[in-house]
Amino acid sequence: MTAVITEADIDEIALGAAVLGTGGGGDPHVGALVAKRMIRVHGPVPRITVDQLSDDDFVVPIGGIGAPSVSVERIIAESELLAALDAIERGTGRRPTAIMPIEVGGGNSMIPIAAAAVAGLPVVDGDAMGRAFPEAQMVTFHLAGYGPGTTVLVDHHGNEVISRPVDGGWSERLARAVTVEMGGGATMIDYAYGGSVARECVIPDTLTLAQRIGAILRGRDACGRELRDDERIDALCDDLGAFRLFDGKVRDLQRAVDGGFTRGTAELDGVGADRGSTFRLDFQNEMLLARRDGEVAAVTPDLIAVLDLATGMPITTDAVRYGARVAVIAIPCNEKWRTPAGLHTAGPAHFGYDVEWTPVEELAHQRKGAR
Amino acid sequence: MTAVITEADIDEIALGAAVLGTGGGGDPHVGALVAKRMIRVHGPVPRITVDQLSDDDFVVPIGGIGAPSVSVERIIAESELLAALDAIERGTGRRPTAIMPIEVGGGNSMIPIAAAAVAGLPVVDGDAMGRAFPEAQMVTFHLAGYGPGTTVLVDHHGNEVISRPVDGGWSERLARAVTVEMGGGATMIDYAYGGSVARECVIPDTLTLAQRIGAILRGRDACGRELRDDERIDALCDDLGAFRLFDGKVRDLQRAVDGGFTRGTAELDGVGADRGSTFRLDFQNEMLLARRDGEVAAVTPDLIAVLDLATGMPITTDAVRYGARVAVIAIPCNEKWRTPAGLHTAGPAHFGYDVEWTPVEELAHQRKGAR
Repeated sequence: MTAVITEADIDEIALGAAVLGTGGGGDPHVGALVAKRMIRVHGPVPRITVDQLSDDDFVVPIGGIGAPSVSVERIIAESELLAALDAIERGTGRRPTAIMPIEVGGGNSMIPIAAAAVAGLPVVDGDAMGRAFPEAQMVTFHLAGYGPGTTVLVDHHGNEVISRPVDGGWSERLARAVTVEMGGGATMIDYAYGGSVARECVIPDTLTLAQRIGAILRGRDACGRELRDDERIDALCDDLGAFRLFDGKVRDLQRAVDGGFTRGTAELDGVGADRGSTFRLDFQNEMLLARRDGEVAAVTPDLIAVLDLATGMPITTDAVRYGARVAVIAIPCNEKWRTPAGLHTAGPAHFGYDVEWTPVEELAHQRKGAR
Repeated sequence: MTAVITEADIDEIALGAAVLGTGGGGDPHVGALVAKRMIRVHGPVPRITVDQLSDDDFVVPIGGIGAPSVSVERIIAESELLAALDAIERGTGRRPTAIMPIEVGGGNSMIPIAAAAVAGLPVVDGDAMGRAFPEAQMVTFHLAGYGPGTTVLVDHHGNEVISRPVDGGWSERLARAVTVEMGGGATMIDYAYGGSVARECVIPDTLTLAQRIGAILRGRDACGRELRDDERIDALCDDLGAFRLFDGKVRDLQRAVDGGFTRGTAELDGVGADRGSTFRLDFQNEMLLARRDGEVAAVTPDLIAVLDLATGMPITTDAVRYGARVAVIAIPCNEKWRTPAGLHTAGPAHFGYDVEWTPVEELAHQRKGAR
């Protein structure tokens, strides 16, 4: 069941990761360039499933932390990846045996593949979010009661910071402060655990999921059938059990960079079958809340993705623009986020939205019933 | 030549450290309470000279970092000292064999004594400033070209951060950011080196110096003679080769907490022999620049201390108040600060003062000649 990730897989994975990034998580484009280069130099990366991890494994999540606008402009160096892996080994006394993405959404799907190539290690097909979230404690390890453990931050200047924060909240605070000082972007390792904890916590098969999404949006469904441009979004929803919430045109856009986040709202006027309705998206890096004619249509931790109506290409919160014609889709989040701990950590209240979380499939069902 | 520091020594050392703190470095009072308690519990602390260090020693400077106003209110716990020492051992793989003050000025004279008592280690009679300075890179190790090495920050929450900054400037930046996040105060270890580097860099005998200053200000000179209150300041200047720059009364005081520093100016009207002259002190945590009738009378890195005119007790920049009658004295700094590297690191230009550094003894000589 071993597979490898080759240079040819990267663009599909990156495209799917942009959808799972729900508008945040950073543009995977730069990360894809780095991953492809590392694979070209060091060879393909073995992709292992979570089940293949043994208790003796030491599984190291690695990714970027900081403002997406910084990560987009910064090509991560091989030396920085090696420095991070070296630091976690010194800080824990354990040699990494596998690399994993901390989040599959956005650019952080790519950095672990690049790091695995550089280190000659396999990458785990899975992650700790099943999407992208903006804060370091928003991971399945945290939900299961595991702390961040020994965490590493390195930067391109050569600085190294190894910390043992008392919990996930402290890890986020300390890492954020250090990252700002490092220039707004850094490479981070946290929640590095043995194979048994990884098997317990990791959301499996999310790199494969990202690649399947990417393949569909590039016009080929799971059976290898060619898809016309206008079939892709529906094919994606069918494949994912996702919901096409709204087709519309951006009528109004409020967006500001505030406290290290890209925050704002987009208002859409319906087109096609949705003509006559309006839709509002609230975002903080990620798309977090979608309302149709004032009624909640989907809300975090469920995934809300904005796609170009014509091509199906995902659009980040940074790149949404006035007049764009888009389709908004919602994907049910992993069950781990639907627990009390999950909703406390990444539900609407955490982000300051005064709405109740309701599963997106229930909201869709209610709407269907109402029609 | 081994000596021990007992509970009875602490108040004298702390008093002298307040003078060498030149108005900053934090009030040693709380630190003195902690040091006395640790000595009471764990026994007296061997005081060793720099010469007694062997190449096999691993000498660990430990102290507080952060806003003095926080350190004054925070009683450092034994567990925090032990956590810092444990972290440096894990971070370097070397077990500390001796503790030293990173700065002898202010509260950081006391924390190493407390830590040495807790750890059952000797304290080195010496420090890396010969005074107090506000930034982490303002140490003799830095002047000699040594980096901060493996640095440790721990807080009372139980967080631990071990970093390897690329240089002293980065160490200061990263440590300051983490300290702010930790609540404005933390315990820090940096510039931990083997005995040979410590012998090269440490300014020797500064705990003994602090104690001698404290003894004089408490009314006993080096020969054991009792001093009247009004003899103490002159006796101190005689002993230290220091200069009594001005006796005056605070006429105007500008003080603000700005960017984590206590910044401001104090203007004095002369009294006694100085009647008819004015004097201005500029401070940023420490007293840094003294001008008499507009002419520079002393400037950093030379030490400027403000003492109560009646009692000789040192007054911190935080505690200077309108109407106070004070004597300003200046103590020549250690030769290491008078090199190009020393003046670049802690001279007037670093603090934004547009004046040339001239040795305080030369300034005093010029003034004497002019009279």
